[in-house]
This record gives sequence, C-alpha cells and structure tokens, in this order.
Amino acid sequence: MKTKPIGIFDSGVGGLTVVKQIFKKLPHEEIVYLGDTARVPYGTKSPETIKKFSIENADFLLRFKVKLIVVACNTASSTSMDELIRHVNVPVIGVIKPGAKKAVTVTRNNKIGVIGTYTTIKSRAYVREIKNISSKIDVASKPCPLFVPLVEEGWLREKATFAIAEKYLAFFRRKGIDTLVLGCTHYPLLKQVIGKVMGKKVKIIDSASSVADEVHTILMSMGELSDNKRKPRHKFFVTDAVEHFVRVGEKFLGTKIQRAERANYV
Amino acid sequence: MKTKPIGIFDSGVGGLTVVKQIFKKLPHEEIVYLGDTARVPYGTKSPETIKKFSIENADFLLRFKVKLIVVACNTASSTSMDELIRHVNVPVIGVIKPGAKKAVTVTRNNKIGVIGTYTTIKSRAYVREIKNISSKIDVASKPCPLFVPLVEEGWLREKATFAIAEKYLAFFRRKGIDTLVLGCTHYPLLKQVIGKVMGKKVKIIDSASSVADEVHTILMSMGELSDNKRKPRHKFFVTDAVEHFVRVGEKFLGTKIQRAERANYV
Repeated sequence: MKTKPIGIFDSGVGGLTVVKQIFKKLPHEEIVYLGDTARVPYGTKSPETIKKFSIENADFLLRFKVKLIVVACNTASSTSMDELIRHVNVPVIGVIKPGAKKAVTVTRNNKIGVIGTYTTIKSRAYVREIKNISSKIDVASKPCPLFVPLVEEGWLREKATFAIAEKYLAFFRRKGIDTLVLGCTHYPLLKQVIGKVMGKKVKIIDSASSVADEVHTILMSMGELSDNKRKPRHKFFVTDAVEHFVRVGEKFLGTKIQRAERANYV
Repeated sequence: MKTKPIGIFDSGVGGLTVVKQIFKKLPHEEIVYLGDTARVPYGTKSPETIKKFSIENADFLLRFKVKLIVVACNTASSTSMDELIRHVNVPVIGVIKPGAKKAVTVTRNNKIGVIGTYTTIKSRAYVREIKNISSKIDVASKPCPLFVPLVEEGWLREKATFAIAEKYLAFFRRKGIDTLVLGCTHYPLLKQVIGKVMGKKVKIIDSASSVADEVHTILMSMGELSDNKRKPRHKFFVTDAVEHFVRVGEKFLGTKIQRAERANYV
C-alpha cells in the first residue's frame, strides 16, 4: 500500500503547481498526474459537465491503483467533490478547503478576497468554506476569466496583463481586503502582477503548499506515507498533445518532465 | 430532399456569425446548429483531437438527415476537411476556402495577412488556399489566441483589448498588407478594434458571407435549395450549458434563439 502512487488530476497544466509542492514536501511519493487538455478549460463550463469529466478522470487514475486522489483543479474541486468521494474508495482531497483555511489564518482585518474562474466563483465554494471556519469574516469574490488564457499565452508581465489585472482587481481595493486567495492553479504565475496591483499590504494566498500539507497529514494518519528509498518514477498523462503539455508544464513545475504520455479515454 | 435541413457545427458560439449570413441569404433553409461547448476551444488543441471531435459532431448532425454540412469553425476547417469529406455522404463546406477567395479578390497590393488560433495558423491552410489561387500573393500569418477569450468575456472595446490588439497586429503593419483575413469566427466581434489598430487602408475580411454564398451555389447546383414556404424551424444544440449559449449566442446572431437543447453524446 505504502508504495502505491498518489493520483492528481487537473483540467490542464495548472495542477502542476500542486505537484511542485508535493515533490518538495513528500519527495518519496510517486505521482500519477493527469491533465485533461482535450477538454480544458473547465472554468467556463457547467457543474454538470465538470462532474462527468471529473469522474472519468478519477476512473483513469484508479487504473494505477492510486492510494489517494488530489483534485488539483479549483473548478472541479468547487463542483465535484461530493460525487468523487461517493464514486471512489480512496481519500479525495480538493484545493478549496486548504486554501480557505490558509486565508483565514492569514487575515488580520477579517476581509478576504477570492478570485477564480466563472464556475468556481459561481459555486460559492470558497465563501462557504471560509464562513464555515469563521462566520465573522467578510468574503468578496469575483471571476477573472482572462487570467488563464494570459498565462497560457505566457504574457506574465505585459502591459495588457496589467491593464486586465487593474480592471478586475479594483473591486477588491475598494473592499479593503488584506488577503487575496488565488482560487485557480494558473494564477500563481501572475503573482507578481497581482501583487503589484493590490499593493504590498495585501497577502496573496495560493493553496498549493497547503494542499501538499493536507496530503501529508492524511497519508500519515492512514499509515500510508511512502517508505520508498528509490527515486520515485512519476507518470504524466494528458488527453491531448503531449509536446505542448511538456513545454508549458515545465514552466509550472520548474523542473524537467521526463516522461509524458497520451491518455486515450476522451 | 429540398426540405432537409443544413447542418452547421462549431466549437462553440462563434459559428453563429455564419448562421446569421445564411439566415440573411437563404431565408427558406432550415438550420441544425451544433456548438461543442463542452470541449471548446479547439484552437489550442492538436489536429488529431480536433479530427476526432469533428467526426463526432458530424455524426450528430447526420441524425437530422442534413443535406449539407458547414464546418463553421476555422480550426476544424483547417485540420479536418479531408476526414469529414471521406466520412459523410453529403457535401461538406469549410470556412477557409471562401475566406481565402474573398481576400484574393479584395487585395490590390498582393499582400494579405491572416489571423487565427494557434492550430489554424500552424496548419497553414489559409496560406495554401491563397497561394493556390495566386502564387504571386505574399501571405503573412500570426496566431492571436487571446482574441477568443476577450470576445467571450465581452471586452470588445476595452483599454486592455486595444493593448492586446496593438501587440498582435504591429507585425502586420510592418508587413504592409492591405487585406487582413479574420480566420476565426469569434473575431468579427472585434472588427472595430482591429480596424482601428490596422488603419482605414486595410480591408478586414470575414468569411461568413462568402460561406453563405458558397452554400447557396452548391445547393443550387444540386437542385436542393429549399422551396419551403413556411417559416423554417431551426434547431440549436450544445454539448454544455444551454442558457450560457443562448445568452452569448444572441450577441453573435443579432436575433433571439427560440429553442436550444443539450446534445448528450460528449
């Protein structure tokens, strides 16, 4: 059991920001990553469709006898957790709860902002999680759908990127938040622009490292942390073009992707 | 046969710009429209994946005994025409050839620019078609992947939209083109911004009206123009959320969408 891999899926490359943190905090664990690049993005699609895709993605990961599944996509986490937990017989971890927890511990003035895709924001999953922890906290949220294509285009510090960030984020400055949750795994790549627009006093939260902590906690509690002494052999799968994924993915991961294959179930 | 509908598919709402022209030029024809909104966009995906999706879309349309299929998506037209023509037993019309023809008749200095998605531009389909008509013409092409999300966000005249258009289109000003082909069915909604950035001397071509002309020519040549005297009852299908499609789609179509349903084959 202990040497079984951890399964992680995302709609595309964004979930690699979570993989990066797991590599760092759990270096003995083997990863099977799945990016559903044939159907990316999820953030503009309906909860119904995302649930269907999420179940198919989980089924693919289960072929590798994974001991735990991480839903590294905020949109899937905000819409499909209940279905996934019912559907599979291993623990399932989403990215919303860890991000919400971290934001609550960081805020000083009890005013938190959340940005994400249309579907994530519309689900109000972050608002619910934050309010569950502390009902005193004010949560302001807003979708920023152009951030994902900007990251995929590699425009991380362009004039247009600042103009778009200005337009989306002015709302949060008016709200007086001191903490902003990046509720999409693409957004950490825009941290610099977002930080500049929001100003130094606003803390920017991404959930990737909190998710890795939660994976650690759960595996430890089940006695399933890997005791593998060899270097783990990770596997990366995508439902569309492998080369493009490797090229863009290495930016997210910050290291080489040794082996990536096409998953043909879509 | 004559009262059979025309089938049209696109990756999403963009193809409605073609439908609009068909309504105008062929008001007696009945339309079955399919937008593959569960898997949109196509423009960043591989030709292999788009071919598979295109065949599935055509199969769905054939259930309605369509007399002709219009591939209203530039990315699908630039990658999947051969497979589609082999696969179905009715005529198939793409959007590349009509757009290329129109550009060639319009240019005076024999310098044409083409913009589109990554996959469309990489396919070089427009370059091939234009060169086929006249090998003397210089064709410059460039992908503008942020234009689609800008249109879907409804940012048709924002500061950021101009900044993005400036960055993409400066290349064509340097090339001295006098004609620019909008090689994506979303781009006509940005015509004003693109026109402003390119200047009055550059003619902006979108293929929608040429496609409608070609549909007319082919149906006439086969003796299959509709002689229906009743008002046709069009059908609209999408593979994801219907309401969102109707809301955004009415902007593209410029009229109400009376009836839209979900297609469940994805």
